[in-house]
Amino acid sequence: VDEFALIRRVVDALGSRAQGRWVKLGPGDDSAIIDQTPGCQAVASIDTLVAGVHFPADLAAADVGYRALMVALSDLAAMAATPRYVLVALTLPEPDGQWVAELAQGMANAAQRCDTYVCGGNFARGQLSITVSVHGEIPVGQALTRAGALAGDYILVSGALGGAAACVRLQEFDFAKTLSACQLSYLKPQARFDLLKPMRKYAHAAIDVSDGLSKDLEHLCNTSLVQARLVSAEIPLTEGATLADALTGGDDYEILCTAGHLIPGFTCIGQIAPGSGVYLDGEPLDTRGYNHFGT
Amino acid sequence: VDEFALIRRVVDALGSRAQGRWVKLGPGDDSAIIDQTPGCQAVASIDTLVAGVHFPADLAAADVGYRALMVALSDLAAMAATPRYVLVALTLPEPDGQWVAELAQGMANAAQRCDTYVCGGNFARGQLSITVSVHGEIPVGQALTRAGALAGDYILVSGALGGAAACVRLQEFDFAKTLSACQLSYLKPQARFDLLKPMRKYAHAAIDVSDGLSKDLEHLCNTSLVQARLVSAEIPLTEGATLADALTGGDDYEILCTAGHLIPGFTCIGQIAPGSGVYLDGEPLDTRGYNHFGT
Repeated sequence: VDEFALIRRVVDALGSRAQGRWVKLGPGDDSAIIDQTPGCQAVASIDTLVAGVHFPADLAAADVGYRALMVALSDLAAMAATPRYVLVALTLPEPDGQWVAELAQGMANAAQRCDTYVCGGNFARGQLSITVSVHGEIPVGQALTRAGALAGDYILVSGALGGAAACVRLQEFDFAKTLSACQLSYLKPQARFDLLKPMRKYAHAAIDVSDGLSKDLEHLCNTSLVQARLVSAEIPLTEGATLADALTGGDDYEILCTAGHLIPGFTCIGQIAPGSGVYLDGEPLDTRGYNHFGT
Repeated sequence: VDEFALIRRVVDALGSRAQGRWVKLGPGDDSAIIDQTPGCQAVASIDTLVAGVHFPADLAAADVGYRALMVALSDLAAMAATPRYVLVALTLPEPDGQWVAELAQGMANAAQRCDTYVCGGNFARGQLSITVSVHGEIPVGQALTRAGALAGDYILVSGALGGAAACVRLQEFDFAKTLSACQLSYLKPQARFDLLKPMRKYAHAAIDVSDGLSKDLEHLCNTSLVQARLVSAEIPLTEGATLADALTGGDDYEILCTAGHLIPGFTCIGQIAPGSGVYLDGEPLDTRGYNHFGT
């Protein structure tokens, strides 16, 4: 197997998700070529998943591919950006054509769900890891950031939390049988591009829940220079997950935002106040979450 | 050292190269925000350098950072695109703040030279590797690809070839003393954005020399459905490099293009003809070059 045979297998597996509509030139040349939308800004992020660190080394290739793409794309949803294209850098110890084709199939599935394209990539030899660079667009000035939350805002979260963390905590990595709600959260996260319209219309600040609710809310509060007051009873939990899973576990990829109004599709879990820090039922919250190099 | 302390060191070291002008929001949020230029398309590529494979594991961090950025940016120059922004995903075994700061300093140096920005990134724990996603712009329809070379075109190359390969072949990795021409080629490659204007005006097809002249020319010929006829005596060699270094060694990051006219800044090394394959002085050329998974 040489590099060019691998590229052919990936492009075959990506099918219509390698090139089309705004992607004028997909994989195969030095760079891809993508149309830009007048009146829009680019929104961009990059994320790496390392085997044995961010996913079990024996996870099915299609699941790894799906998850790698969705996890990265969630950073675009957090800014309320529409996905446009994705680049993938794959580092793998051996050129396993079948594994790579299945990985690309999982990526195509995620790209299809988010209506985006995997238009370029790179192979290198080394420890198994997948880096995904994601690129979206948004009308000028409409991107949501972690700044902008105002005292009095509602704290809103999409979907239910804690499922992926519970799956990891319980080591429920036998995905052969019918999947539990927690396994689904871990295996099939969904970047919330379905919520872009109401987010752009109503939200003042946003972040995706990747490091755990308490940590991500702390990021948002630190950037916005405000205080968060959570009500534990209001935090929606995935079936099988605990409040601790939701607060300190990561990997939910739901949207956490603040707004002056309630937003359909979101649950209100507290309120923003003047000050700093994150409080739960009136008590200061330990905001330890996932830290890639923490002790 | 935690992840956020590392990010602060990187952002400090990047200085004015983290955000500015068209980069409206740099590192620190879920995504970066970048202005797009009306009438332009996006051009994008991704590249990974693995320690011990693509660079000596003990290469100085600043040199690794410089090289990683330039090597990736060269794929934009190959399309005649103007660089706009870069994302960096760093996988490293230990959170060494000093090493990371020096890496970022080298990246800032390369970004400065190419007038671009490192506006986002990611840290993960694993085998040392650097993935760089590069993003440029070009007026709609003006991107050069590997397709488009015409029979009768001149084959043109910028600069001199073989230096980086000679440096690797001779294992000249003691960079303490005054650098030889070959060491400079290896250590301080320069993506040829200085040639964008004449490339856009005259070139029919282009590629950067990363896998070796013969292999890269073969890519171009295969995509353009033409034959290349090289004249060995015309191939400009870096002082200390052999013709074999130029033909089969990689890592030069000069521009190889074809055009109906000679172009200032380029040396004519042969001509395009009808047919297929790459010929040197009338003989078919073995087009083995760098193949990431080849035998």
